[in-house]
Amino acid sequence: MKEIKVGLLGLGTVGAGVAKVLASHREELEEKAGASVVLQAIADKDTTSPRKGLKVSELPMSADVSSVLDDPSVDIVVELFGGIEPARSFIMRALANGKHIVTANKALLATHGEELYSEARRCGRMLAFEAAVAGGIPLIRSVKEGLVANRITTLYGIVNGTSNYILSKMTDEGQEFSRVLAEAQAKGYAEADPTYDVEGIDSAHKLQILATLAFRTSVRLEDIYVEGITKITPEDIGLAREMGFRIKLLAIAKATDSSLELRVHPTMIPESSPMSAVSGVFNAVFLSGDVVNDLMFYGRGAGQMPTASSVCADIVEIARRIAAGQAAVPQDLPVLGRKLLALKPMEEISSAYYLYVSALDQPSVLAQVTGILGRHEISIASLIQKVRQRAKAVPVVMMTHEAQEGAMQKALREIDDLRVIVAPTRMIRVEAS
Amino acid sequence: MKEIKVGLLGLGTVGAGVAKVLASHREELEEKAGASVVLQAIADKDTTSPRKGLKVSELPMSADVSSVLDDPSVDIVVELFGGIEPARSFIMRALANGKHIVTANKALLATHGEELYSEARRCGRMLAFEAAVAGGIPLIRSVKEGLVANRITTLYGIVNGTSNYILSKMTDEGQEFSRVLAEAQAKGYAEADPTYDVEGIDSAHKLQILATLAFRTSVRLEDIYVEGITKITPEDIGLAREMGFRIKLLAIAKATDSSLELRVHPTMIPESSPMSAVSGVFNAVFLSGDVVNDLMFYGRGAGQMPTASSVCADIVEIARRIAAGQAAVPQDLPVLGRKLLALKPMEEISSAYYLYVSALDQPSVLAQVTGILGRHEISIASLIQKVRQRAKAVPVVMMTHEAQEGAMQKALREIDDLRVIVAPTRMIRVEAS
Repeated sequence: MKEIKVGLLGLGTVGAGVAKVLASHREELEEKAGASVVLQAIADKDTTSPRKGLKVSELPMSADVSSVLDDPSVDIVVELFGGIEPARSFIMRALANGKHIVTANKALLATHGEELYSEARRCGRMLAFEAAVAGGIPLIRSVKEGLVANRITTLYGIVNGTSNYILSKMTDEGQEFSRVLAEAQAKGYAEADPTYDVEGIDSAHKLQILATLAFRTSVRLEDIYVEGITKITPEDIGLAREMGFRIKLLAIAKATDSSLELRVHPTMIPESSPMSAVSGVFNAVFLSGDVVNDLMFYGRGAGQMPTASSVCADIVEIARRIAAGQAAVPQDLPVLGRKLLALKPMEEISSAYYLYVSALDQPSVLAQVTGILGRHEISIASLIQKVRQRAKAVPVVMMTHEAQEGAMQKALREIDDLRVIVAPTRMIRVEAS
Repeated sequence: MKEIKVGLLGLGTVGAGVAKVLASHREELEEKAGASVVLQAIADKDTTSPRKGLKVSELPMSADVSSVLDDPSVDIVVELFGGIEPARSFIMRALANGKHIVTANKALLATHGEELYSEARRCGRMLAFEAAVAGGIPLIRSVKEGLVANRITTLYGIVNGTSNYILSKMTDEGQEFSRVLAEAQAKGYAEADPTYDVEGIDSAHKLQILATLAFRTSVRLEDIYVEGITKITPEDIGLAREMGFRIKLLAIAKATDSSLELRVHPTMIPESSPMSAVSGVFNAVFLSGDVVNDLMFYGRGAGQMPTASSVCADIVEIARRIAAGQAAVPQDLPVLGRKLLALKPMEEISSAYYLYVSALDQPSVLAQVTGILGRHEISIASLIQKVRQRAKAVPVVMMTHEAQEGAMQKALREIDDLRVIVAPTRMIRVEAS
């Protein structure tokens, strides 16, 4: 039976997971690949510390990446270092050396994806990245192959487990963001530097990768509007709940024939939607295609084993192809469609909105605020004016119908300029359908 | 560019959908296949009636299946007649003639799958059936490829849209089953003969196909316990809701190292689970793998276009392989694992249970009923004894902890033998996790 040799760059959490699965599921992987999948080399600065579940001394460790990148017998390089450099250079070198690539590196693909896909195509090699978006969920494969007969029109999802865990905790326990973040860090659900997760940057990376694939167009990371969850309050969450909504950090992409909108921000969704039940560290991606209609994928978006599951699926697919003598083909990689889509600027997107206005308890406040909204063609679907608590401002909570973002931003500026407004108006976008 | 020729058996609802998509998405399909996908021949008894969205007179119609099965230029035969014969014979003939197969025929695969997979393997041809389970959802592909690194331990799902539609309507409107069925038939959501859908048979077919693939073992349709939704009452649904549950018709499979249980029956699931939000004609399949942990797929399980989406995805995948000179490989088809799993008889499965006991309003009824349960080692998690409505029996509603099915069946027989019981005890299984 043919032997397909794998080299791992990195024996961190995911690398260790991959090494474990390659050993524990060796027979099944061999059957499914029609070839023996051999871990030939592992490059990691740390060649000696124990990794749970592995006997490091029995692994083909080296501190030198050449053992992976330049060993002619290595067929597949699995890049699990993360980050931009030197991961990018290693992948380019591996491709130049005739190796296929499997990676989980969302930050790299989101910023240098096009360059890497082109190089892989030029070298006639496969570059697989199932693990880069939504962990264990076979999402990339589904979009690439299962939905080939579709023009994807919409996709949105919860693609960052840390921020979803935090929002779920805030929802269940009514705690403030900063307190829940601290607890999450203590439990290992959030990093010491949680910026990428709570500011929506990680979600934007994943959206870039998904949108490139699904809409077959060029997507620049900097074109994605990004807003994190740090300003969400327990009060917003409670009001959302009263009105039958949940707050999630959503990555959203909507396409027309000629344009594409891309954004990441906290979003209220109806509690009746399957996505509202996605809690904790779980991820979910909703897609709509012009033939298949609505689909949703749900599962663990991160974690050692779910991520290793996807990395190994990619390894097996490539091994199967190599063993069967099947060359890489251009369609293996994200292709650009005939017509590229123009980015729809954020001001032009439509959304429904939740507004929390803090006003002095004076006559005509409501008239002034609703007057501004009306002048910007923003119509109000529902309004709650809460009883004033002692000397505090009067909270006026509104849900609007669909309106244009640009109009909303202008209206918010005018509202916040009013003398009767005592704190910046809070706004959260709403996806009602 | 290479031309890959497709022959359709059947221009019914799904066939027409496929013909439409092959025309309307021709360019994208060509790009993704790396080959031109040509509709070469369509065989259907009815060569003339209009089909919405198609110009039948411009299609390569014939009433003779030879035009598809025996035309040497046809590469892929798409079987959409349905039913067992002559579909089975046609597929065997097509394989013998060197053609690859795409089918949506769940009844055929559930009863003759092993024979067809073997023949396809023997002929070195691909046999794809994404459309046979869960319509547009790329489920088969996900299990076959995306989850190769997993031993699947559990799968369960809502895989029949008609019965889910009926249960959703009963839930939303409080109506009786027979009335909702009649309305569903009037709207085209249920067939004139709805037996396969409401009795769980269609769900059992899909479970057979999924389980064969996911657990890599031999599964006989007759080994699947099947119970439909015809006895579910609005009262059961209302009580479930009170206790925080929804009732769904679930297809369930659970594996250990050596055994496999397979069943289709109405099941109460917690309203907090993503699956409880799956309503109307939507399907959802939950899977748990030993590496990836929990996953769920959701989408339209039936309907012209969702089904056509999956058929076309299979066509493109096969076309891509043919065009790239890639042979069919054994792993393309469900393989039997090294160790086949023994069927766990229904009496040995464990479940939690909902019981609705109708008793006379007499002393010691509760003691007698709970005594029987206790003797069979069935412990009660919660109990509601409702106020007796005039001269009716007293409803005693119980939720049990996990118990063995055999013990429950014995207990039910004993309970129903009691003089104080006035109607057969209703029982619905509960999946709480």
